[in-house]
Amino acid sequence: LPVSKRLKSSQRLFVVDYENNRFLFLPFGMSMQSGSMHYMRIPRIHWRDRLLKLRAAGLNAIQTYIQWSLHEPWPGVYDFDGNLDISSYFKEAQDLGLAVIIRLGPYIDAEMDMGGLPFWLLREDPHMKLRTSDPSYMKWVQKWYGVLLPILRPLLYENGGPIIMMQIENEYGSYFACDSNYTLQLRDLTRGYVGDQTVLFTTDGPSVNYLRCGFIPKVFPTIDFGSGQDIGAAFFNGLRPFLPKGPLVNSEYYPGWIDYWGYPHSTGATKAVVHTMVRMLALPTVSVNFYVFHGGTNFGFLAGSNSDPFRGVTTSYDYDAPLTEAGDPTEKYFTIRDALNVLFPGPQFPVPDPTKKYAYGNVEMNYVTSLSSLLSSLAQERPISSSHPLTFEEIGQAYGFVYYETVVDIHPTDPAILNVSEVHDRGYVFVGDKPVGILSRESNSYSMPISIIKGQRLGILVENQGRIAFGRDINDFKGIIGNVTLRMAGDDKLHILEPWSMHSLPLNNTEDLLSQLRRRFQRNPLPKQIVHGSVAFYYGTFPLPSALKKEPQDSFLQFDGWTRGIAWVNGFNLGRYWPVMGPQLTLYVPKSAFRPLNEVILFELEGSPCEQDGKCKVQFVDSPILNGSTPHIESPLSL
Amino acid sequence: LPVSKRLKSSQRLFVVDYENNRFLFLPFGMSMQSGSMHYMRIPRIHWRDRLLKLRAAGLNAIQTYIQWSLHEPWPGVYDFDGNLDISSYFKEAQDLGLAVIIRLGPYIDAEMDMGGLPFWLLREDPHMKLRTSDPSYMKWVQKWYGVLLPILRPLLYENGGPIIMMQIENEYGSYFACDSNYTLQLRDLTRGYVGDQTVLFTTDGPSVNYLRCGFIPKVFPTIDFGSGQDIGAAFFNGLRPFLPKGPLVNSEYYPGWIDYWGYPHSTGATKAVVHTMVRMLALPTVSVNFYVFHGGTNFGFLAGSNSDPFRGVTTSYDYDAPLTEAGDPTEKYFTIRDALNVLFPGPQFPVPDPTKKYAYGNVEMNYVTSLSSLLSSLAQERPISSSHPLTFEEIGQAYGFVYYETVVDIHPTDPAILNVSEVHDRGYVFVGDKPVGILSRESNSYSMPISIIKGQRLGILVENQGRIAFGRDINDFKGIIGNVTLRMAGDDKLHILEPWSMHSLPLNNTEDLLSQLRRRFQRNPLPKQIVHGSVAFYYGTFPLPSALKKEPQDSFLQFDGWTRGIAWVNGFNLGRYWPVMGPQLTLYVPKSAFRPLNEVILFELEGSPCEQDGKCKVQFVDSPILNGSTPHIESPLSL
Repeated sequence: LPVSKRLKSSQRLFVVDYENNRFLFLPFGMSMQSGSMHYMRIPRIHWRDRLLKLRAAGLNAIQTYIQWSLHEPWPGVYDFDGNLDISSYFKEAQDLGLAVIIRLGPYIDAEMDMGGLPFWLLREDPHMKLRTSDPSYMKWVQKWYGVLLPILRPLLYENGGPIIMMQIENEYGSYFACDSNYTLQLRDLTRGYVGDQTVLFTTDGPSVNYLRCGFIPKVFPTIDFGSGQDIGAAFFNGLRPFLPKGPLVNSEYYPGWIDYWGYPHSTGATKAVVHTMVRMLALPTVSVNFYVFHGGTNFGFLAGSNSDPFRGVTTSYDYDAPLTEAGDPTEKYFTIRDALNVLFPGPQFPVPDPTKKYAYGNVEMNYVTSLSSLLSSLAQERPISSSHPLTFEEIGQAYGFVYYETVVDIHPTDPAILNVSEVHDRGYVFVGDKPVGILSRESNSYSMPISIIKGQRLGILVENQGRIAFGRDINDFKGIIGNVTLRMAGDDKLHILEPWSMHSLPLNNTEDLLSQLRRRFQRNPLPKQIVHGSVAFYYGTFPLPSALKKEPQDSFLQFDGWTRGIAWVNGFNLGRYWPVMGPQLTLYVPKSAFRPLNEVILFELEGSPCEQDGKCKVQFVDSPILNGSTPHIESPLSL
Repeated sequence: LPVSKRLKSSQRLFVVDYENNRFLFLPFGMSMQSGSMHYMRIPRIHWRDRLLKLRAAGLNAIQTYIQWSLHEPWPGVYDFDGNLDISSYFKEAQDLGLAVIIRLGPYIDAEMDMGGLPFWLLREDPHMKLRTSDPSYMKWVQKWYGVLLPILRPLLYENGGPIIMMQIENEYGSYFACDSNYTLQLRDLTRGYVGDQTVLFTTDGPSVNYLRCGFIPKVFPTIDFGSGQDIGAAFFNGLRPFLPKGPLVNSEYYPGWIDYWGYPHSTGATKAVVHTMVRMLALPTVSVNFYVFHGGTNFGFLAGSNSDPFRGVTTSYDYDAPLTEAGDPTEKYFTIRDALNVLFPGPQFPVPDPTKKYAYGNVEMNYVTSLSSLLSSLAQERPISSSHPLTFEEIGQAYGFVYYETVVDIHPTDPAILNVSEVHDRGYVFVGDKPVGILSRESNSYSMPISIIKGQRLGILVENQGRIAFGRDINDFKGIIGNVTLRMAGDDKLHILEPWSMHSLPLNNTEDLLSQLRRRFQRNPLPKQIVHGSVAFYYGTFPLPSALKKEPQDSFLQFDGWTRGIAWVNGFNLGRYWPVMGPQLTLYVPKSAFRPLNEVILFELEGSPCEQDGKCKVQFVDSPILNGSTPHIESPLSL
């Protein structure tokens, strides 16, 4: 029987066989060889391709987070459509003979904005104790589970679906709160929906220190570690005290690692990755999940940040995984596949060809307008007025930008020192409409000298670079935190600037953005001078080659000479680009983004190469560059 | 006999009559009523006018500093010409019947750059202990005295000249070093040139604390204080312990006070000034010297600074003195004159009319060139290369600017934090040729975020705002002090930037500057866009009205819309303008600066009002504005 048939057969069983230190995972065997692959990081058009490739490597299951913040973008508003149609994702996996392991959350980390928690929790109650039994928080978790779990129930293994296991929370033992009431409540809440049969599990770091707060009574514990770890110490010293009998699972086995802007591209050596994998799988019924087997892309504003030091996760989530960001098998992929085939002989599946890539070449980009001239028509609503700067959360904005403006009503010294208690995360400072500098949380730089006179407008365009995904600082409010002050020369006193008006610029209405820029471009195709450092929109068009009009191919967009911003192709937000920081120099563009005639938009925040005559280019190339030069020559201290 | 005759008569005598607590100052009487008036702050063409007015107020002597740094601008190079022709100044005073009291230095304070000490002392020996018996310092004092005192000797009272007294050092009791070997050496050195007869004196603050280190044995002690002081405490508790018998002298009686950029205009209420003056002069033979009776102007780069906080003295040294900066009698002048006439009845002199002023009106200024395009032709020499930034003193430059440049040879984060150990005193920062911000000693602001990429030029145009004139920090090296570093985001390490090239821009060759700008203006009269914040030269011309071609009149130059810079009229350096800081909004332009056809140059450092079309204006007006709005609403802590 082909696996797909077998998985639908009547031999279905998934239980933990504690006595024999194994799973009974019928019809597959006694362990899982699985790979993390996140639906939200893979264009829906490519879901099937990636699942096929994962299966062809010899894995029998996928693992994925479910990201609350995407499915409930606003309290009580739910979205399970398109790229968020998890039922289809799971069914597609099942069709291909793959089981599904779910990491339910509510918190997932995943290097996503706020670790996957909805930003609006911080609006509902700024003092909410996230990831605890705080009723203010649990109220929303309960509501969310009331929506999510009924969707998942029919997809459980016992109900004929692919879902064999569900993870409660995520590495909770690493969180300072250590609130066992919380994890018990999550367990019971989940059990209430899924019954007693589905295996619930936890994942924690590979030592007693982590499991102490991560372990939940009557929930199956697993651990996570990479190829550098002492396997015996992890499983036997770390996990066994909490799981005296039963199969051993590494739920996050790292074939590579996260990339951060400004830090070298992370890699995992194939030899070490496969060596440790084999040593784990050779133990009596160890199960392994590659985190990640295929990483994909942090499209749009998905990417989160880490601290400390504060640093943003790159748009690419390539992770040096067995399948590249664009879904192509690597040498690592084939080596893993060959090793798995030795360990678990059985029917092999042909590896699909790499998806086709195309170098569409140069696209002329045209300066269309500065942000300031588009501000009022772009802003979501009328500007908000307040005596003090409001956070994104107070304004009710998840991602993107808020433009803060005040009029200086004192006579400042020349220069005066602008201080912002904190900017989360990056503040482009303007005097009038002129850019004068950048405040940056990454640089721990919240003050700068400015020359401004009484009556002039001081503007700060604040960018959310992704909320912190991990650690004690996940209640990471965005925008201007606290007061904005001027300090005079010769004085230590801080003059508080107020009142403020705030323009909300989530930049999520891309239809509107596109039509505004298209109109301006057509009306005024030849712009004049560009002020260096201006925040500006650039627009360009190009047709697909005739041969590709019906079936476009994936591509990569390269940003030579550009500085930092966001790129869209036909309104699809490719994510952040930042070539001066590296290591990522190209953005992945899935074929689904292309049309016969394409419109490219860049929202460039710092400096374009168009300054001579308002024209310059971006380049569609056929292979990514993820290991460009970076300021830092070493990775940051581990997560 | 008119006084001028009397002063040449045979009744000449000037001695301290200790027994009778008075001077014997024949033919004048028993005390001095004098006024400070500094030759270097008054255009030579106006010397006589100011002396006449001082005499007409009823004073019998002038007091003046002699400023070493001006007379010996380079070791062994001397200048006693033109505005520095002190012999003529003293003779002119004598012709008008005025005695002369000299403050010899070598240190004078006077709110002049480095308190009047030559900057090159710090080049000869960076570790030189200024104002002490350090032989490294005294060697140069001896040499200077060997030139100066032979010039003064024939002008001594005993030799038929006007000089009745000579001050040793200046408020030495306020200096931390308290080196009595030093003051004794100065005394003996001076005595060696002038003999025993000339009265040597010291001036110190009005308490024992000051006189303790300021008093020199066998030198006549005097004190200084303003109208708020308790006269009895000053003279009897402060001075008398060091001068048990003899006349009492207030050598600096303040009718107003110094102005600093950014702080409110200082004034002294006429009523209080005259009241205290009368109470002093009513005591048995108290002598009083107004500091200053006429302040004048810190033309060019004369003005010094004070600390702490670091702050620059304005170009105007009006001081709210009895005679204005432009030499005009004030209400304070006439009230003093009337009071003196009551106290010391005698022949009165007519008060000369105020000098005539003229509002020449608007002059169109034209953007001619940025500093960067003029850099190589303006710089004094070829650029100097060095691994680390050199100070002005190391380069051998007294005043003006040095442009420091390096090429960034690391890959910086975006932004990186630029740190300069210290900038003395103001650093205009450029990436390539683009202005990106200002570092400022006044603001205690030596770091800022910058966006720069590997291979780009980082430039810092450093301005000497005037060396500190007073206190323990007078060894005030200029330029970049220490290293320039970049700090990366996410890192605390400082990356030292090197090597550096340095362009010396003293801007003292005004003939050359004028001809270069004139040529460029004629070649290319219509400039293009101006980058905001650019350091640039502006040029304009205007003819005198026909009626004034033969005899121009004084005027004031007003800078509405300009930010900060230096202005020249026909190559005469009017000094610094800084209207955004205030309180001084106009620069005094003496009639001697004008020609039938006039050329005006502005070196604008921060932002002109010409940004629209490269043209804008300055305005010649007929009255000064010295009390413009300032950021600070209170004066700084007293000197």
